[in-house]
Amino acid sequence: MKVIKFGGSSLASAEQINKVLDIIKQDNSRRIVIVSAPGKRHDNDTKVTDALIEYYNSYITDQSLIEHQNWLIKRYEDIISELKLSQSLLNDISESIRGLSELPKENNPYLFDHFLASGENNNAKLIASFLQKNGLKAKYLHPKDAGIIVKGSSCNAQLLSSSYSKINKIKNETTIQVIPGFFGVTEDDNICTFSRGGSDITGSIVAAGIHADLYENFTDVDGIFVAHPGIVKKPQSIEELSYKEMRELAYAGFSVLHDEALIPAYRGKIPIVIKNTNNPKHPGTKIILEHQNKNLPVVGIASDDKFISINLSKYLMNREVGFGRKVLQILEDLNIRWEHMPTGIDDMSIVIRERELTPIKEREIINRLNRELEVDEVDIIRNLSIIMIVGENMKSHVGVTSKATKAFSDKNINIAMISQGASEVSVLFIINKSEEKKAIQALYDTFFNIKKH
Amino acid sequence: MKVIKFGGSSLASAEQINKVLDIIKQDNSRRIVIVSAPGKRHDNDTKVTDALIEYYNSYITDQSLIEHQNWLIKRYEDIISELKLSQSLLNDISESIRGLSELPKENNPYLFDHFLASGENNNAKLIASFLQKNGLKAKYLHPKDAGIIVKGSSCNAQLLSSSYSKINKIKNETTIQVIPGFFGVTEDDNICTFSRGGSDITGSIVAAGIHADLYENFTDVDGIFVAHPGIVKKPQSIEELSYKEMRELAYAGFSVLHDEALIPAYRGKIPIVIKNTNNPKHPGTKIILEHQNKNLPVVGIASDDKFISINLSKYLMNREVGFGRKVLQILEDLNIRWEHMPTGIDDMSIVIRERELTPIKEREIINRLNRELEVDEVDIIRNLSIIMIVGENMKSHVGVTSKATKAFSDKNINIAMISQGASEVSVLFIINKSEEKKAIQALYDTFFNIKKH
Repeated sequence: MKVIKFGGSSLASAEQINKVLDIIKQDNSRRIVIVSAPGKRHDNDTKVTDALIEYYNSYITDQSLIEHQNWLIKRYEDIISELKLSQSLLNDISESIRGLSELPKENNPYLFDHFLASGENNNAKLIASFLQKNGLKAKYLHPKDAGIIVKGSSCNAQLLSSSYSKINKIKNETTIQVIPGFFGVTEDDNICTFSRGGSDITGSIVAAGIHADLYENFTDVDGIFVAHPGIVKKPQSIEELSYKEMRELAYAGFSVLHDEALIPAYRGKIPIVIKNTNNPKHPGTKIILEHQNKNLPVVGIASDDKFISINLSKYLMNREVGFGRKVLQILEDLNIRWEHMPTGIDDMSIVIRERELTPIKEREIINRLNRELEVDEVDIIRNLSIIMIVGENMKSHVGVTSKATKAFSDKNINIAMISQGASEVSVLFIINKSEEKKAIQALYDTFFNIKKH
Repeated sequence: MKVIKFGGSSLASAEQINKVLDIIKQDNSRRIVIVSAPGKRHDNDTKVTDALIEYYNSYITDQSLIEHQNWLIKRYEDIISELKLSQSLLNDISESIRGLSELPKENNPYLFDHFLASGENNNAKLIASFLQKNGLKAKYLHPKDAGIIVKGSSCNAQLLSSSYSKINKIKNETTIQVIPGFFGVTEDDNICTFSRGGSDITGSIVAAGIHADLYENFTDVDGIFVAHPGIVKKPQSIEELSYKEMRELAYAGFSVLHDEALIPAYRGKIPIVIKNTNNPKHPGTKIILEHQNKNLPVVGIASDDKFISINLSKYLMNREVGFGRKVLQILEDLNIRWEHMPTGIDDMSIVIRERELTPIKEREIINRLNRELEVDEVDIIRNLSIIMIVGENMKSHVGVTSKATKAFSDKNINIAMISQGASEVSVLFIINKSEEKKAIQALYDTFFNIKKH
């Protein structure tokens, strides 16, 4: 039994939805379908979810709503008429969209979630109806009935661990079940969404709940690329990734699969495949527990910018019990998350994301480091990027770091910091942002574009 | 004005002391002489300081003292007779050695320090007398009269910062002043020694106090070698080191200059030179604030063993404010100093020296990491060595790390962790101890033994 999830671009138009039908028909073990809200049909289009946010904003600020409602209804209407679905479905969806503006504004902490979730919810009804019309036994299933019971504040749903056994029951149903992604239901019956893009999370949760053989995640690219296609020209897609590798790549900018979506599948040991709705014959990228192919040391190159580094030095700091703890205490007192902490002998650098630091927090850190820890020097370096090479097989391939650093030095790129922990799933280089693209290209040429050399 | 310090092997015999005389005579700005206790004359010899420790142990356990006293007196007597110094000097020294056994054992927290310090103290008298006999204007100066006033517990003297202005006054004296190294005097007139090998510290303090033009540290090697001569065959000595580089090398096994001896000179910006009493024409190694020669990226390769690494992983650990702080808090609660902390994405390694960990502490750490921090995995790797390449000019020489990692991979040496902080004075590799020698040789061949390639 497979769980199959389609992203917004796979469901944006009648044409796309017909491709979805073909894909579902091709394999009768594709029995649970998770759907996103309709995405963009072209570059200048608006995603349904974004339109719902605007609708919500107008509602809470008491502005006119009719345009928002009409746009949203028209969006579904176009698809329904092209797919020749029933008027009653359209009526149902229209009513649901208008009904949002009758929800109470006061004492309703999940109001925003109700708006957001309606994009997926209506789309699930539409897709279920479309599958039926095309001769498949299919039904729409609300997350509540699927057993996706959550807790948490608005837009921050966390699955209750007791939900898995509830979800497990839906596997006994013999029809195809279409479940809207992105949200669950709280114990007191409120809609509560996962973080944005959370349909991936729903898919992963359901796959884990029913112990699926495979979780197929259909999107609009041929899997996950070895490097960002905006930087490297036509990078190949990755055949096979371990969960750990996926997590590391996702950390530094690989956003094909939602960050939190990995955990349920990982814990349930459910393999994931990322495929392309527009090119379903392409094998895509498989995410699994352990590599079958041990020959490839590096599976991907990731990068992310907007990091800064707080560098401090103090003579013989390693002799002071508690020194590092006190440094981190200062950050914790200011509610700052840190990412990395490369150390020299009498110096340490703390790498954090730019957004964690305000000018006030920055001054406070410097003051406290000087006053309480009596550091010899402290300075802050901005505009840093993290470049990562990722691959579990690096462990058994001596020389990967050497090749990577040579790639940098050949292009005259200075490495500000390096961190390679014992897990050896990745090596992390911190460089100046201005050299990020050059660095990615150099690493790509070294590890993937071998012919060039 | 120069401060010149002679180590134990430079003062072990009449022959050596004659070399010392020649060195002092060669440059009349060598006006303050710091002396160690007589060292070994040959491999199986006993250092005076070690004989004093045995003497002390016998004294506090009420055993016979006569042999210890006789051995020590004979040691000085041999030198005195060969150098044809006066009987009254020998009487003075003999009395001082015997007098140690009349010091109170009760309520005397510095008793051990009195024993230890007598080796240097008597030798300073001897050297002063020898210089006078050879026509130099010279006098013995007790650390108290030199202004070396300290606080601290036995064997752990810390200079009072007010001492520097007292020490400064001795520069007005026109004769050569011979000061015993290794100890100072507390405000209530007790002898208190620095940590073992602390004559270097005395020299550095005095040099800083009088704003010396140079602190000459005479030992028995031609300066500091680029790599350990026990591992690499006939390594060259380093021409020029910055204080920072010296500190980093000292961290990982370069023990030519005492660790704490660097600070006073560094703060006072006093250049240091490490020279060889047995080969005084060799320029030795100069330790200065800033490099003159910017061409050499790596100045030395150091290594140290007996490290272990605690590796822990937890999914999304970087999202938890306070995670790292809590990990370090556990170590602090157990009074454990940590050295390095390389991080991956969901994992961190904490590198500590083996001696910091007992089996009980180890269990406690693992328990608390599991219980309090709910880590996904924790394991401990033993028998690690740290290999460092050190050089301030690495900053401006792209490609040093690349060469180093290539040297490892060419020899099939796996790098467990890498840490390179923002200071870029060193890059630190953590590898298995069994590969330490091979790694040092490989780095030496890469950076210093270029002809071989």
